Amino acid sequence: MRRIGVADTTFARVDMADAALRALSASGTGFKVVRRTVPGIKDLPVACRQLFATDGAELCLALGMPGRADYDRTCAHEASLGLIFTSVLEAKPIVECFVFESEASDDRALDALARRRAEEHARNAFALLFRPQELSRHAGEGLRQGFPDVGAARPRH
Amino acid sequence: MRRIGVADTTFARVDMADAALRALSASGTGFKVVRRTVPGIKDLPVACRQLFATDGAELCLALGMPGRADYDRTCAHEASLGLIFTSVLEAKPIVECFVFESEASDDRALDALARRRAEEHARNAFALLFRPQELSRHAGEGLRQGFPDVGAARPRH
Amino acid sequence: MRRIGVADTTFARVDMADAALRALSASGTGFKVVRRTVPGIKDLPVACRQLFATDGAELCLALGMPGRADYDRTCAHEASLGLIFTSVLEAKPIVECFVFESEASDDRALDALARRRAEEHARNAFALLFRPQELSRHAGEGLRQGFPDVGAARPRH
Amino acid sequence: MRRIGVADTTFARVDMADAALRALSASGTGFKVVRRTVPGIKDLPVACRQLFATDGAELCLALGMPGRADYDRTCAHEASLGLIFTSVLEAKPIVECFVFESEASDDRALDALARRRAEEHARNAFALLFRPQELSRHAGEGLRQGFPDVGAARPRH
Amino acid sequence: MRRIGVADTTFARVDMADAALRALSASGTGFKVVRRTVPGIKDLPVACRQLFATDGAELCLALGMPGRADYDRTCAHEASLGLIFTSVLEAKPIVECFVFESEASDDRALDALARRRAEEHARNAFALLFRPQELSRHAGEGLRQGFPDVGAARPRH
Repeated sequence: MRRIGVADTTFARVDMADAALRALSASGTGFKVVRRTVPGIKDLPVACRQLFATDGAELCLALGMPGRADYDRTCAHEASLGLIFTSVLEAKPIVECFVFESEASDDRALDALARRRAEEHARNAFALLFRPQELSRHAGEGLRQGFPDVGAARPRH
Repeated sequence: MRRIGVADTTFARVDMADAALRALSASGTGFKVVRRTVPGIKDLPVACRQLFATDGAELCLALGMPGRADYDRTCAHEASLGLIFTSVLEAKPIVECFVFESEASDDRALDALARRRAEEHARNAFALLFRPQELSRHAGEGLRQGFPDVGAARPRH
Repeated sequence: MRRIGVADTTFARVDMADAALRALSASGTGFKVVRRTVPGIKDLPVACRQLFATDGAELCLALGMPGRADYDRTCAHEASLGLIFTSVLEAKPIVECFVFESEASDDRALDALARRRAEEHARNAFALLFRPQELSRHAGEGLRQGFPDVGAARPRH
Repeated sequence: MRRIGVADTTFARVDMADAALRALSASGTGFKVVRRTVPGIKDLPVACRQLFATDGAELCLALGMPGRADYDRTCAHEASLGLIFTSVLEAKPIVECFVFESEASDDRALDALARRRAEEHARNAFALLFRPQELSRHAGEGLRQGFPDVGAARPRH
Repeated sequence: MRRIGVADTTFARVDMADAALRALSASGTGFKVVRRTVPGIKDLPVACRQLFATDGAELCLALGMPGRADYDRTCAHEASLGLIFTSVLEAKPIVECFVFESEASDDRALDALARRRAEEHARNAFALLFRPQELSRHAGEGLRQGFPDVGAARPRH
């Protein structure tokens, strides 16, 4: 049974893990979820490291929600660098799913955006682990998560 | 007996370790504190590395107070990256607790904010080590440290 | 048979791997391509790490297309640092080929630019692996990829 | 005999190592200094790495003076990240002592500031190695190097 | 026979390696040069890593010329971090010699500046390897490469 790690935060204002877990279950079987919840996004890299090294995950989904302040953008940048560093060190993918509070105009929109993006990134995570060739079939197609796909610049020749 | 590392600085204008240690003691038992005080926040990463590698800590609390100048923000960024790098390398959590001098309007407010945030981060540190499932129960609830929680964007369904 | 890794994304709006693979085939023989497609540019570093560590690549081509927003520039910066870190860790080259959407005025120009740059970087990748002395012959000649070469500041003496 | 590494530059406009070495000697005995001078601040991280790995230092003092241009601030940022990375990798402290040319209004003030800061950081280095509990006694007291201490936000309770 | 690595680019508009190699030869004997030319500055870190790990270099000279655009400054920053990371990992010096196109007013001045700086950095590289004590004799003297030295802030006492 392969393991997928899910790391999330108490700082986020939406239970993104809930949405991600539903989407993972709907994607297929053959995996078990291991989860670690941490205070904020800067704690996600080490949570993923522990999900890999201690809990046996083969891939992690890192869910977080940076706030509206300038400083939150710096924190998100630091967290992203830490997630990339961790994934390279472990040679195992971390699918980062961040939703900035400032991306949504009100709480209802924020909730919807965060759930939708978490679901779509969860499906990406599943594909990376179980159906990597599916991603190659969609290479260069301008896919987006949480917002509509923008599509390829020109039709495939 | 599990060990919690506490790293703090002489640069800070509040004895944040004092507040953190009280909060840790009030949280429960079953641990011993090991401590290293360094000049400034950029010295915190290696202090945590030594708390892990030499002093046997399983988790560190890194307490610091960047000043008001632009340059202090750069230093905080560098320190944060170093703390994340250290935690990933060691596969052990570092709970960063920084209070920017510019977050408070006067010395009295700064003292109160720094103590409150140090206490709340100390409780997070305790939970990460001894009651990780407690954090998962509060995932996505918009928790904050030092300031009031902002809450979830929408009630949990 | 030497292996060249190709990492690309579903986020890009042009099938840059298609252009790169054609240019590689036209450059010569003696190699086999291994490929991994990931969601976005921040997933490229670990994809390259896996192409090296799991799939036996000796060199990777990392193809990506950052969007028009400010945040995309941050993502590109993070991805670039991750790619450099990965290449140094593995002691094997990663030829980064990024095309910013904002470099082109419309979709047709974007498609043409992305294909041309992918081809030229693919030829560089081939040269690095099979004809490194060819690159030294062109040192300091102001070569560019996707746009016309600018040339040396002064004729060679 | 414990070893303290001193790394400095030919780029700096003040012989900061001279000031540091005097302050170290005045602090106590029981150590030997090993020194490496490099061209600029970006060379300090590897100099410290060699002071640790080749020359047997247990702690390093990294002395540098970034110039007045914007680019010098970028270089200082890169150097700082490298110093932090090195100290974490080696699990040994590096006391960074940088003086920006722009901190002083004229050459005489620059010379005085650089010497004073180098001396105070040298005393910190000595304390870290030989009297770490002394630093803990001054935790949260708002100590500064090169400029007057700012003090604690409120008297200790 | 000790080995000095030289890494340069086809992107640069001046054959900086040519100038550096002449200056190295004029500095003394007892070394052999190993060289790798790569497309751009972001490829220099892994080229140095290979010069160390595969080609046996004890020190590398990394020569590059970032363009005039804002994006080129970001690339230079990434390349510099990669070079520092590589040098620390290998515990061997990398002398970075970058000339920004924007430092010179025209092509003739650019050519002259790039050659002069490459020569002066090559002499520094030679000194680091063969006459390190010479650098210490010039500590704090405000030395520059490519432009006139600025000198010490005050005469040595």
